Amino acid sequence: MTHWLDEITWNEQGLVAVIAQEIGTNQVLMLAWMNKEALQLTVDKNQAVYWSRSRQKLWFKGEESGNVQKLKDIRLDCDNDVILLTVEQINGIACHTGRHHCFFKQLGTNKWKTVEPVITDPSILYSK
Amino acid sequence: MTHWLDEITWNEQGLVAVIAQEIGTNQVLMLAWMNKEALQLTVDKNQAVYWSRSRQKLWFKGEESGNVQKLKDIRLDCDNDVILLTVEQINGIACHTGRHHCFFKQLGTNKWKTVEPVITDPSILYSK
Repeated sequence: MTHWLDEITWNEQGLVAVIAQEIGTNQVLMLAWMNKEALQLTVDKNQAVYWSRSRQKLWFKGEESGNVQKLKDIRLDCDNDVILLTVEQINGIACHTGRHHCFFKQLGTNKWKTVEPVITDPSILYSK
Repeated sequence: MTHWLDEITWNEQGLVAVIAQEIGTNQVLMLAWMNKEALQLTVDKNQAVYWSRSRQKLWFKGEESGNVQKLKDIRLDCDNDVILLTVEQINGIACHTGRHHCFFKQLGTNKWKTVEPVITDPSILYSK
């Protein structure tokens, strides 16, 4: 039998796109990427571990800020190349800008407008 | 002023990842990709138009099946490289497998299990 990790269609960089959705509110919090190790760690630790493409290393979500994402469910899509995580967002802040989620810019008439408040200033979130 | 389309960080293929979420249920329906033309068309037609990476052409969602996604909201994330669409999913079927959405495989103990029903057989959806 194929290992469950090998049923995923990893892209050329060995990554899969991962959507994190908040349990209860169903708010889409963010999209990030995982490699095989990150996904295995996510399952093992029962909390989200991503692959940081900018830093090219494992990203233990919430390690610094405390804004951990506790794992509730993992889904795979029809093409085996997108994962949907259901998570409990600790502290209610998923975004590095200190907002609840990352999708805070809304398209109005030919412009993007910020429509979500900062809950905690990032300088406080990342000062520890 | 920068054109709103130029504020998006398009990837090396000129694409941006797009999450489609259903209005009302907040169900995440699918993830697809758009190029600049697809996103402009999405706004102009008020319904989702993607870029098919497999077919390398514009994908007018629902053109064949009738399962159109009417546009309700467009959001951009903190890194300007992911879009979240809120849509009304006509016929309640987003997935080409005939299911409500694409995330129908759930991770159990070391295996993926299909947990969502087929609403309409794809042979009927795509027989027109």
